[in-house]
Amino acid sequence: MQSVDLNCDLGESFGRYTLGLDDQVIPLISSANIACGYHASDPVIMEKTVKMAKEHQVSIGAHTGFPDLMGFGRRNMAVSNEEAKAYTKYQIGALLAFCKAEGVKLAHVKPHGAFYNMAAKDYDLAKAICEGIYEVDPSIKLLGLSNSKMIEAAKDTGLAYAQEVFADRAYEEDGTLVNRRKPGAMITDEDEAIRRVIGMVKDGKVTAITGKEVAIQADSICVHGDGEKALAFVKKIREALTKEGIEIKPF
Amino acid sequence: MQSVDLNCDLGESFGRYTLGLDDQVIPLISSANIACGYHASDPVIMEKTVKMAKEHQVSIGAHTGFPDLMGFGRRNMAVSNEEAKAYTKYQIGALLAFCKAEGVKLAHVKPHGAFYNMAAKDYDLAKAICEGIYEVDPSIKLLGLSNSKMIEAAKDTGLAYAQEVFADRAYEEDGTLVNRRKPGAMITDEDEAIRRVIGMVKDGKVTAITGKEVAIQADSICVHGDGEKALAFVKKIREALTKEGIEIKPF
Amino acid sequence: MQSVDLNCDLGESFGRYTLGLDDQVIPLISSANIACGYHASDPVIMEKTVKMAKEHQVSIGAHTGFPDLMGFGRRNMAVSNEEAKAYTKYQIGALLAFCKAEGVKLAHVKPHGAFYNMAAKDYDLAKAICEGIYEVDPSIKLLGLSNSKMIEAAKDTGLAYAQEVFADRAYEEDGTLVNRRKPGAMITDEDEAIRRVIGMVKDGKVTAITGKEVAIQADSICVHGDGEKALAFVKKIREALTKEGIEIKPF
Amino acid sequence: MQSVDLNCDLGESFGRYTLGLDDQVIPLISSANIACGYHASDPVIMEKTVKMAKEHQVSIGAHTGFPDLMGFGRRNMAVSNEEAKAYTKYQIGALLAFCKAEGVKLAHVKPHGAFYNMAAKDYDLAKAICEGIYEVDPSIKLLGLSNSKMIEAAKDTGLAYAQEVFADRAYEEDGTLVNRRKPGAMITDEDEAIRRVIGMVKDGKVTAITGKEVAIQADSICVHGDGEKALAFVKKIREALTKEGIEIKPF
Repeated sequence: MQSVDLNCDLGESFGRYTLGLDDQVIPLISSANIACGYHASDPVIMEKTVKMAKEHQVSIGAHTGFPDLMGFGRRNMAVSNEEAKAYTKYQIGALLAFCKAEGVKLAHVKPHGAFYNMAAKDYDLAKAICEGIYEVDPSIKLLGLSNSKMIEAAKDTGLAYAQEVFADRAYEEDGTLVNRRKPGAMITDEDEAIRRVIGMVKDGKVTAITGKEVAIQADSICVHGDGEKALAFVKKIREALTKEGIEIKPF
Repeated sequence: MQSVDLNCDLGESFGRYTLGLDDQVIPLISSANIACGYHASDPVIMEKTVKMAKEHQVSIGAHTGFPDLMGFGRRNMAVSNEEAKAYTKYQIGALLAFCKAEGVKLAHVKPHGAFYNMAAKDYDLAKAICEGIYEVDPSIKLLGLSNSKMIEAAKDTGLAYAQEVFADRAYEEDGTLVNRRKPGAMITDEDEAIRRVIGMVKDGKVTAITGKEVAIQADSICVHGDGEKALAFVKKIREALTKEGIEIKPF
Repeated sequence: MQSVDLNCDLGESFGRYTLGLDDQVIPLISSANIACGYHASDPVIMEKTVKMAKEHQVSIGAHTGFPDLMGFGRRNMAVSNEEAKAYTKYQIGALLAFCKAEGVKLAHVKPHGAFYNMAAKDYDLAKAICEGIYEVDPSIKLLGLSNSKMIEAAKDTGLAYAQEVFADRAYEEDGTLVNRRKPGAMITDEDEAIRRVIGMVKDGKVTAITGKEVAIQADSICVHGDGEKALAFVKKIREALTKEGIEIKPF
Repeated sequence: MQSVDLNCDLGESFGRYTLGLDDQVIPLISSANIACGYHASDPVIMEKTVKMAKEHQVSIGAHTGFPDLMGFGRRNMAVSNEEAKAYTKYQIGALLAFCKAEGVKLAHVKPHGAFYNMAAKDYDLAKAICEGIYEVDPSIKLLGLSNSKMIEAAKDTGLAYAQEVFADRAYEEDGTLVNRRKPGAMITDEDEAIRRVIGMVKDGKVTAITGKEVAIQADSICVHGDGEKALAFVKKIREALTKEGIEIKPF
């Protein structure tokens, strides 16, 4: 039986500030990327989110970001590779403490926002991140953009990995994402988005923006839980996958 | 053979800012309390400091503080017990990542500054800290003020602990520290300070400020590495202890 | 014609995080306390909020808080008086820049959360805050708790001030607030709350928790804009005041 | 009589951390760029530094940086122009409060580190910064890299400006700095550095790395106060300028 993972960013609240419908999206997903206090979250939120993930038997990952709370980790920062590696370790460790306390596994790391986007294109940065993960615990997997430098770096590091795909994004012929600024970069039709996702999971193929069919590995699908519309789409994608006989479970 | 631990706060630099003569004091001590990014330090400093401690075979502890970089964790903050517990876990975890990467043990936790002073007097706060430690890893020890609420809370939690004494501070009859604002609170004569420390370690006794001899357990002596004078005193105390046949090693 | 001010905390969002229904409450109030980046807000939010206040002709004040974003400035912090004064100046200045850019007056300062509560009881802290305000601009007023140490300190500093009252809080015979932990501290009946406010504004009197009628000066009423229920209450209080012939305008 | 300004970054300490020999360099300079709490400094340090500058009759400027304390503002950050403008206003205002309290003028703004380097090359970013300054107070001057986009943006904004030159850096034929990674980018010979500076000030010319003599405007020379060697060089450069009959005074 075929399977795929549905991953979602959770635990992005901070202090007095609430973000995301965590309790509503968590029953729908198989993996949670939990923020670690650098771009979002704080220790109280992290503890609560790990407990919630445990209760819903959702696989846990560290959502590692730049130290930029004001920018929510979405702004490129020219950190050195040494810094990227150390920031990765720090954040993994911080989340690991809550996982150890709850007796659950910290299964993966997914860089967040600008850290993710930069690492997808910059092999050296991706390698620093992968080495950071590996040195803390070589059994932790990387969840990275399909066909990106992150996957290449994970392979070279000897780190297990899962390739992430996006339902709402167009792909280039080389399997990378079409830049958001280009026309056609976003797949706005929900039914088309779902058809594409099923094709990626079942056949390992996606139609590139050029019209050509290209190979893609879809181990995990990124979904969102930050609004009613996002939640409705997660339900829709779950139903469609289930109908196609695809099991939803952690990678 | 009798033994005692010499502990010192290390890794208190931050980004461009350097604090402490870490490389000079580390050969003289047996335990290092390493800051975890809340009141001081950052991931790059933490990594470097753990490596340095490993190289010098110094036992490693997490120096957990309030989230108050501007105040260096020295200002009382009315955090809730839930927050104190979560902050403790977070900081232990962050340091643990670097320890795991270097294959060394995170042996103890010592709260820093205002967190230490408040927990010494507030049993509930101390208990929250001890539970935080215990839940992450029950084999980690608490390093706390001798005769304080911290020691009581560690016992009640089932956490191993070491009792810390100060060479330069006077004691009350109940074994607690004389408030710094009271006359005679500080022992300014170095030779007297050393005599007192040796008495505490060898005989388990100290002369209280009232003149009465009282019992005290001295598992670890707090020393400083933030200046030439402090370094000279650490050397002096080491020599005196060695001369008395007291071995310096981690608790 | 009698008048009173309605003040509300605004601009408490931060980066990606949204807090408060600022655009809905602003047409209902006469003074806005704008957060300055210490306990909440950031420069982009501050700029936007000052523009919004200008557009609605609402008087602007700096809502100065402790440097504790994670705790939203609600946790007591043992800052020194020198620090309290410097933090006050810093935050006033930061907001002043946006006021100058928009050509509007920074009319008042209201300390936030724990800073407010501590200063209400601690004369020296209140004095440090008042001096900070006075030194930056002696024409800025203090908005402080009625009958508190803040008002006393403002008088002694030569600073103009406005006394703030709460519709939903009970008062002691000395005109101070009943501690929240005591039974009867909160006025939960909305109609009673409104009757009390009108009494305070019109007659300068309020019935203390003991039943005795005591004098109180009500220059400004604190209202909230953080939810539908809060908004409904602000509308209700406005209507009641207007019906009584009390004008709502800045102090 | 010809004159030139000597500017130095001051007030870069933070909380418990001390940086720079501020009290030793301040008698030697004519302008101080004071950090504003984003990349360095805190309100207590800012207050102290403004007082020190006033006492030494040194002209005061805001040293505005990225919100990156951990990286000391030295790492490029992809902030939006809207953010750059708001961050500029915020930091100017914060320093302005201390200047108003001391009755001294905030005379200029000099972006710091990565903010400076990015704005030197990116016209839109430079324009956003200049507009931020202008909107707060059009009488504040920009201190920017000679021949850079910052100067162009200041002209277009209608902002007064001063062009900054470096004694220890080589120049390209177009008057911009030679990239630090290129051989010959740094002028390591102190006497040559001083000869070059005198040439820039007296004749408005400098020999580019290609050997060609090019025009350059030298309103202010950047000096450093972060060590004994730096201090000695400032003294040397002062003596040389004085001997040449060039007065050292604020631009």
